[in-house]
Amino acid sequence: MQEKLYAAVDLGGTKIYAVLAENCGRILSSVRYDTQLDQGPEGILEQMAISVREVLAQAGAGSDRLSAVGVCLAGFFDWQRRVLIHSPNIPGLDQIRMEERLSEKLRVPVLAENDANAAAIGEARCGAAAGSQDVLYITVSTGIGAGLVLGGQIYRGTRGFAGEAGHMVVKPDGFLCGCGRRGCLETVASGTAIARAANEVLQSGKATLLRELSRQQGGTVNTATVFRAARDGDKPAQEIISAAIYYLGIALVNLVNMLNPEIVVIGGGVSAAGEDLFVPLEKAIQNFAIPPAAASVTLKQAILGVEAGVTGMLCLLTEAERIREG
Amino acid sequence: MQEKLYAAVDLGGTKIYAVLAENCGRILSSVRYDTQLDQGPEGILEQMAISVREVLAQAGAGSDRLSAVGVCLAGFFDWQRRVLIHSPNIPGLDQIRMEERLSEKLRVPVLAENDANAAAIGEARCGAAAGSQDVLYITVSTGIGAGLVLGGQIYRGTRGFAGEAGHMVVKPDGFLCGCGRRGCLETVASGTAIARAANEVLQSGKATLLRELSRQQGGTVNTATVFRAARDGDKPAQEIISAAIYYLGIALVNLVNMLNPEIVVIGGGVSAAGEDLFVPLEKAIQNFAIPPAAASVTLKQAILGVEAGVTGMLCLLTEAERIREG
Repeated sequence: MQEKLYAAVDLGGTKIYAVLAENCGRILSSVRYDTQLDQGPEGILEQMAISVREVLAQAGAGSDRLSAVGVCLAGFFDWQRRVLIHSPNIPGLDQIRMEERLSEKLRVPVLAENDANAAAIGEARCGAAAGSQDVLYITVSTGIGAGLVLGGQIYRGTRGFAGEAGHMVVKPDGFLCGCGRRGCLETVASGTAIARAANEVLQSGKATLLRELSRQQGGTVNTATVFRAARDGDKPAQEIISAAIYYLGIALVNLVNMLNPEIVVIGGGVSAAGEDLFVPLEKAIQNFAIPPAAASVTLKQAILGVEAGVTGMLCLLTEAERIREG
Repeated sequence: MQEKLYAAVDLGGTKIYAVLAENCGRILSSVRYDTQLDQGPEGILEQMAISVREVLAQAGAGSDRLSAVGVCLAGFFDWQRRVLIHSPNIPGLDQIRMEERLSEKLRVPVLAENDANAAAIGEARCGAAAGSQDVLYITVSTGIGAGLVLGGQIYRGTRGFAGEAGHMVVKPDGFLCGCGRRGCLETVASGTAIARAANEVLQSGKATLLRELSRQQGGTVNTATVFRAARDGDKPAQEIISAAIYYLGIALVNLVNMLNPEIVVIGGGVSAAGEDLFVPLEKAIQNFAIPPAAASVTLKQAILGVEAGVTGMLCLLTEAERIREG
C-alpha cells in the first residue's frame, strides 16, 4: 500500500509556499509562487489550489493519493466558526470560508490555522522545542506574532485570536502603531522598527557605519545591516539594537512571568541575528523574570525557518488523521 | 449512606480560613484563625490540622467521614515535584512538602494549589465565570496575582509558577518593586501602591479630601478611601486612581491580546470599588485591545470574595475524586 499524502500551504502576503509530504513526514516536493494579491480572493484561492496540484505533479502522484490539505496564514482565523475574520497582509480574504472553498476545489478535507500557531506547533513537535509541553513561540520579522503550545496543544483562545504579542504595549508614550495605538511591541522591536530607526539615523546626518553599508546595498538598510554595524562597534547602530532588545526583553519577561513556559522559541527574520540577539535576551529573562520562572525556562532560536508553518500544518493533519482513525 | 465530606483550607499570611463541605458543595461549617507566623512551619501545619478538626467538630462529623483536604496558599508551588518553593507571605514554609505533611496529620489525601489558581477555578466553576472555558482571573489586593483557566482547566505552566501578573513590567522607569525590579504592575496598581500614593499626597501638604477622610479613619488611608475621595471630586485622589487604572488597563490589554480569554474576572480588595474601577477598565480593553479579541471578551467583578480559594479547592477535590472513581 502506498503512503497517504498531505499537502501544506503557507499563504503569505508576498509568497505562497506549498509542500507535499508522506504521512511519515518526508517532504516529496515543494513550490513557491509570488502571491497575486491583484487577483483578489478568487484568484488567490485558485493559486493555492494550483500550488497543491503542482506539488502532486512534481512528485508524480495522482490526486487520489492526497488525504488532506493544511493552510496557514497570517490573520484572525475564528477557529470556532471556521471563518477568516481579517488578514492584515492579504486584503480581500475577510469573512472567507477558506477551508470550505479550497476543499471544493481539491475534493479533500482542508484544515486552516493561524500561521504563528502553525509555526509554534511545528517547532514544538519537530523543531527547537521538540519534546516540550509548554512553548511560547515568538516570530520577530516585519511584524511580531506569537503562538502558544500549552499542555502539548495549540492554545488558540476563546475565538482563535490568542498570540497577538506584537500589540502588547511596552512603551505607552511611544510611536503610533498600525493598529491605532501607541507603544506596541511591534513599533519598537520588529524588523520594520529597526529599519525605520536606522533610516532616521541616516537622515539625521550622524556619522555612522550604516551609511557605507547602506550604499553597498543600493541605498537600503535592513535588520541584518544594523546588527552588522552594531557588531562592528557603530554607536548609533548599537543604540538601535539595544532599544529593540530592551523592549523585546520586557515582553519576554512579562510572558515568562505570566505563562511559566518550559521554552521560548524565537523565529522570524530578526532571529537570524543569533547570539547578538539571544545573549542579551537570555540575560534579560534571567535578571528580570521571577526567579522560579526564569530558572525553569530555556530560550532557543527557531530551527525550522520558512518551513515552520508547513511543518506545523503537516503535524496537525497527521494528528487529526490519527484521531479520526482512533 | 452519608455524603462524603471535604475540607478546604486557605492559608494566608494573616488568616487561616477553613471550611467543611459535602461533596454536593454545601458548606457545613467554617473557622477563621489568625495565622501564627511566630510558631514556625510546624506550628502553622498544626494550626491547619486543628482548623480541619474544628470544622468537623462544628458539623458534628467524625473524622472517618472526611475524604480529602485541599489547601491553597500564596506562593510558588511546584506542581510537578509537589513542593512549595517559596511563599513571600509565610516565611519558613520554603521547600516544605505541605501535602505529605498535612496528610500525615489528618490521615486523608491532601491537595495543594496556588491560591490565585484556586480562586480562578472557583470563579470559573461556580462564580463570575461559571460556564466559561478560557478565564483570566486577576486579584488586585495588597499585591497583584493571576490564575488562568484555559480550555476549562487550570493552566499552571511548566513548573506551576504561571500567573505572576503582578510582576509584569508596565512602567520600566517606575518604582522599585519588592522583587528587585522597577515598574512591576504591583508597584503602580495594587492596593499598596494606591495607599502609598495617597500618603505621599498627604505628606506633600496638598489640599485634598483625603486629609479629612484619613482623620476620620484614625490617620490611615486605604484603597476605599481614595476611591471615595475621587468619587467626591477630589483631584489628587482622581489622579491616583487614574494612574492605577491606566497601568492595570495596559496589563489587561496585553493579556487579552495574548490570551484571547472569554472572560476576565477581577477579584481582591481593590475590585470592591465596583464600577469606578470596571467602567474605565472595560473602556481600556475596548479601545486598546485588538478588536477581535476585545469583541470576544467580557470583564466581570469576582463574586466569591474570600470564599474563592476554598471554593476552588472544593471543586478540585470533587473533580479529582470523580476521576479516581472513573
